[in-house]
Amino acid sequence: MSKQELCWSVGFTPDKDLTPQKMVPAQVPGAVQLDWAKAEGMGDYHYNLNFKEYKWMEDVYWVYQADLNSVDVTEGCRVYFVSAGIDYEFEIHMNGRFLFHQEGMFRPVRLDITEALQEGGELKILIYPAPKTACVHPDTREEAAQSCKSPVCYGWDWHPRLISLGIWDDTYLEITPCAIRSAEVSYDLAPDFSSVSVCLDAELDGEGEAHWSFFSPDGEILFQGVGQKESFTLENPQLWWCNGYGEPTLYRWSLTVKKDGEITAQKQGQTGFRTIELVMNEGAWRRPNVFPKTRSTPPITISLNGVRIFAKGTNFVNPEIFPGTVTYDTYLPQVKLAKEANMNIFRCWGGAFIDKDCFFDLCDEYGILVWQEFPLACNNYVGTDAYLKVLESEASAIIRRLRGHACLAFWCGGNELFNSWSKMTEQSYALRLLNKLCYELDKKRPYINTSPLMGMAHGCYLFVYPNGQEVYEAMIQSDFTAYTEFGVPSLSDLDLLLAAMPEDQLFPMVPNETTYAHHAFDAWLPGDTWCSIHTLEKYFGKMESLAEMVEKSQWMQSEGYKCIYEEARRKKPHCSMAINWCYNEPWTTIANNSLLNYPCRPKKAYYAVRDSLRMTLASARIFRFSYHAGQLFEAELWMLHDSMSPLPEGTVTASLQIGEETIFLLDWRYPEIKAGENLQGPTVRTILPDVSADSMTLTLSAGEFTSSYTLVYYPDTKPAPSKGSLLV
Amino acid sequence: MSKQELCWSVGFTPDKDLTPQKMVPAQVPGAVQLDWAKAEGMGDYHYNLNFKEYKWMEDVYWVYQADLNSVDVTEGCRVYFVSAGIDYEFEIHMNGRFLFHQEGMFRPVRLDITEALQEGGELKILIYPAPKTACVHPDTREEAAQSCKSPVCYGWDWHPRLISLGIWDDTYLEITPCAIRSAEVSYDLAPDFSSVSVCLDAELDGEGEAHWSFFSPDGEILFQGVGQKESFTLENPQLWWCNGYGEPTLYRWSLTVKKDGEITAQKQGQTGFRTIELVMNEGAWRRPNVFPKTRSTPPITISLNGVRIFAKGTNFVNPEIFPGTVTYDTYLPQVKLAKEANMNIFRCWGGAFIDKDCFFDLCDEYGILVWQEFPLACNNYVGTDAYLKVLESEASAIIRRLRGHACLAFWCGGNELFNSWSKMTEQSYALRLLNKLCYELDKKRPYINTSPLMGMAHGCYLFVYPNGQEVYEAMIQSDFTAYTEFGVPSLSDLDLLLAAMPEDQLFPMVPNETTYAHHAFDAWLPGDTWCSIHTLEKYFGKMESLAEMVEKSQWMQSEGYKCIYEEARRKKPHCSMAINWCYNEPWTTIANNSLLNYPCRPKKAYYAVRDSLRMTLASARIFRFSYHAGQLFEAELWMLHDSMSPLPEGTVTASLQIGEETIFLLDWRYPEIKAGENLQGPTVRTILPDVSADSMTLTLSAGEFTSSYTLVYYPDTKPAPSKGSLLV
Repeated sequence: MSKQELCWSVGFTPDKDLTPQKMVPAQVPGAVQLDWAKAEGMGDYHYNLNFKEYKWMEDVYWVYQADLNSVDVTEGCRVYFVSAGIDYEFEIHMNGRFLFHQEGMFRPVRLDITEALQEGGELKILIYPAPKTACVHPDTREEAAQSCKSPVCYGWDWHPRLISLGIWDDTYLEITPCAIRSAEVSYDLAPDFSSVSVCLDAELDGEGEAHWSFFSPDGEILFQGVGQKESFTLENPQLWWCNGYGEPTLYRWSLTVKKDGEITAQKQGQTGFRTIELVMNEGAWRRPNVFPKTRSTPPITISLNGVRIFAKGTNFVNPEIFPGTVTYDTYLPQVKLAKEANMNIFRCWGGAFIDKDCFFDLCDEYGILVWQEFPLACNNYVGTDAYLKVLESEASAIIRRLRGHACLAFWCGGNELFNSWSKMTEQSYALRLLNKLCYELDKKRPYINTSPLMGMAHGCYLFVYPNGQEVYEAMIQSDFTAYTEFGVPSLSDLDLLLAAMPEDQLFPMVPNETTYAHHAFDAWLPGDTWCSIHTLEKYFGKMESLAEMVEKSQWMQSEGYKCIYEEARRKKPHCSMAINWCYNEPWTTIANNSLLNYPCRPKKAYYAVRDSLRMTLASARIFRFSYHAGQLFEAELWMLHDSMSPLPEGTVTASLQIGEETIFLLDWRYPEIKAGENLQGPTVRTILPDVSADSMTLTLSAGEFTSSYTLVYYPDTKPAPSKGSLLV
Repeated sequence: MSKQELCWSVGFTPDKDLTPQKMVPAQVPGAVQLDWAKAEGMGDYHYNLNFKEYKWMEDVYWVYQADLNSVDVTEGCRVYFVSAGIDYEFEIHMNGRFLFHQEGMFRPVRLDITEALQEGGELKILIYPAPKTACVHPDTREEAAQSCKSPVCYGWDWHPRLISLGIWDDTYLEITPCAIRSAEVSYDLAPDFSSVSVCLDAELDGEGEAHWSFFSPDGEILFQGVGQKESFTLENPQLWWCNGYGEPTLYRWSLTVKKDGEITAQKQGQTGFRTIELVMNEGAWRRPNVFPKTRSTPPITISLNGVRIFAKGTNFVNPEIFPGTVTYDTYLPQVKLAKEANMNIFRCWGGAFIDKDCFFDLCDEYGILVWQEFPLACNNYVGTDAYLKVLESEASAIIRRLRGHACLAFWCGGNELFNSWSKMTEQSYALRLLNKLCYELDKKRPYINTSPLMGMAHGCYLFVYPNGQEVYEAMIQSDFTAYTEFGVPSLSDLDLLLAAMPEDQLFPMVPNETTYAHHAFDAWLPGDTWCSIHTLEKYFGKMESLAEMVEKSQWMQSEGYKCIYEEARRKKPHCSMAINWCYNEPWTTIANNSLLNYPCRPKKAYYAVRDSLRMTLASARIFRFSYHAGQLFEAELWMLHDSMSPLPEGTVTASLQIGEETIFLLDWRYPEIKAGENLQGPTVRTILPDVSADSMTLTLSAGEFTSSYTLVYYPDTKPAPSKGSLLV
């Protein structure tokens, strides 16, 4: 058995049948753009507007070459060319002869090249230009509407247009007399979780013995068997739980293939035992209750091992622009930070690429559920025969690759497909096909067509909504089963901004090429989304420096996120999900709703969200952001409690700090609170004194459950910057 | 070639392995209950409470026998036992030997019994007891929740419990050297309808030549070919249209199988060329328009050959209790009356059995679209392996049998599955399976999971809603995309009531066994649904006779239906469908929302609905049903216009007739109106005079578009019967 990495070079040609004039060293996995840029000394695509120099590369043919002449093949062995992913449409040639063609970056390639290798070792992979639908608006995401590429790389408000191409995942030769084509572990849990029957299923290329071992979480051998299909039953299995609800217990397994006593192939994996369903939200069957009567909302509450989960998390987007540059080291800190922020779910958004295996391994290990979307977002993916054929192949490969992961909660067709900017419906062939494939290949895992569905909501993405409402008021009024996208923007940290673009382009913050490309202006809504200068100046007056903008916008973002997450939790159990837009970003934006600066530095709001997502906390329902001396301040106190055990009685002490002055509001002695239930407490009220200060902080002291909220305060000596409608 | 009917007898046994003690003549197709009742002289199950005497028959085994010893088999021929439907689970034995088992009444049986016949001619079909799920409420429809029987026969408010069993569709021997296993015609219309490519596809049992002929609507031969699979292209095909939008043009075809020059099998059929889609309702993409933002409503507008149709029709239920008694003669007058009532769609409700082939032939011919549901209704059909297996087989057979019909508009999983009384969701395996099967076997025809979906509505079923609103006010306030069930009850015609049950049980109308069983009381809502005595007496005072109840309730039903159908049409184009509950009934109910008395006599409301569904009419938006002298009467005038051609300008003369007095209200000269558009006109107002009368009639005179509305009037000398909240 041997696994052999190859040494690659790459070049481009304008025409499929021409030979590249120049070949440069290629990093595999990687992207053709990165290899060429490195060889030619082009500027880093992360910096300022450099990405624009890369655009021509999406429209040429790229040729990878590797020399296999020195490959040493033991007698009796077969040689397989194996790649976990080549982006996007490509041909494979050996010694000038065509071997293979594929459209689709998500299904692995596994070619037996033993015979071809006898004629010579010249391996060539021809990458086609990026696929583009003829569309109304060229150079937009619409061009992605007839392919299974990640649409985000065609350009999104927060993402530069850089269409990845090339070998993007592990690629090597496997030389062995008997290889593993696939190895899967599946199981059936008894309804009372008292036992689990486990099936081990291997497919081999060649003749060999499959030796299975199955290990307890402590590493003890629980089962050993020889055969491609084996099965056994475990009594009293430890269940896999998501973060906050229990341990993400994993069992490990290994498969060793032997022939004539020699090991010819090996594979290891991990399995977590759990059931998962989408069940109706509490109270949803009681609606509608008037005639004429429509249907009830569809289920979106996750039931994990029979326990209703309040799903708290975030939209995980592509952590890099080029998937080929993403490694375990990219994912590890992001998954770890999600766990530390008390999150239990990632929505892996359909605009991005499907993440690599190690991402799902990490989510298994850290107890983060994954809502996985197929690569469809914000387009009408018309069900032509050609598109459906590629979609069927790609989606099948994605399902087969990921269905073994305990973390994988449910499948979703894609992002915002049932809204006016996409115009897909339940009748769209692509979605009927995805539903069918998930049913056939992974029946026990739920499937939803898109987000939002009826009862679920996306947005808004601003502190002040387009209709003039503050986030506080809008969230209190809304009544959805799941908030699966919402956001409040802030600027990135100052040092990161200065490292990512020229200072003179940043302040004063005005529309220019840099600020436009890096997501400060004219994104989504025309005008000052996402930097929200108008809103900042309404509350704080004219911004004197970039540093002040960063500081004030990060404050607003923190309070805005606290409001939304905590208000969604207050609406439990009818509401069962709060997932902000978004977690991370693949380059430095000027302003974004993300909680992490690129590549992985928490913003101030990250810590605010972490506090709001504690399993138990004292929480205040705040009614607005800014207050004048002499006005009434009021806030409603709650204990938010998601834990599976009851909360013993305790005390919350509410106080308001304004400048030097501390106003004691009240002690709330709350009784024991049932597992998984919230408790509404008293409303505190006080007339605000006139003090020299520009902010005030409401603190709910309750030991480890303590929370605080920092709001805008105007003393009589310093009135509000304007009489805008936002300020009461 | 020969087709041979068999002579059957039937008997029952309490145990599968026992022989019936008595055999009686059996009618095939039919039902075991009917044969036994006839032989034993039992009372007609339609009359009064006789059906209760039949109940024991659902719980025994039934044995059909036929003697095949005299069957004459020509050398070289095969003998097939063919049945289009045996209800429900059964075994087939020959000469004491087991041959075949099936669960499911909707898939045909086709057995080659040539070899078996050589050992003797004793054919036996063993029918199992009716399937029943162990459930919370025995003797209710819940017992149907793990089978593919029509749930209605387990008992529904308007339907007695009589669970059909036995051979219910054509059954015979086919003796031939080469039979037709299947013959299908499919086609692809060019996007501009300029041509159609037609595929003819036959599967044969045995060796033979397939001779196809394809005929124009005038009977001219357009194509002839020999071969199991043939295809050809027609230029300028005539399209199939539904009633009101064009002619339901049908092409005919025949398949003749020959062997050695002899005809061995024949089949004929008809094909209509059309495209059909469900497209978004007008304006639906513009909603929702506030944050947080959920999805837009799913599409429910039928686009036929690219033209948006306003679907006007009715819920077609089983026209008989026992499907075996239904024939072409049953369906013909009902389909004809639907066409004459200007309807263009039947919703074939999931509670009933799937209708016989001739029903769909008639709908093809009369231009009535069919919304066809699978046999799931008002239950949670839990996706056990056993249920899904039967459902997959049965649904596949249903799809294959019906997909060739031009009339068949779309598939639907079943009735009211996403409401609290059913508790199914998009995650239900049964619905994911049905979506998958329709996609695989009939991709071009839309599929919806259930009715109502988001934006669609069912109900109410009363003139006065449970919240006290009259139908007028409730309908004006509602804003749905499709009204796919709604109703107003009335009593059946007097003579039919007196023929169906004892007169002394009927008046005074009080709860008793007869009135309960025949749908006068305690159905759906506790109390006096459906006879609605309370409502009748609010408007008309104490009912003096059964004849008066019939008259007054039929008046209310007529006006109620006019209100709903016309108000739904006024809400076009956002609303695109109005389908009342229900059209027909399988026995005489005392009170029902149906338009036809059993078996097929139009009620007064039928004629009212016929008028309201004209492609063009003058229509009044009425605001309430009853008026006092001296009060303001007002009504809003409209021209409702669904036709595909513009409506030339014209005049509507509005007048009000009260007793002898005629009040001229106004002349509305309306301009030319665009094809398929309505026009809102003036509001008429007048103070009502004091006249000796108890009704008043608003007439909108406009030639063939004339409409009138008869409302309740109270002169000062005869005040309203009570001061109930209904009467303003």
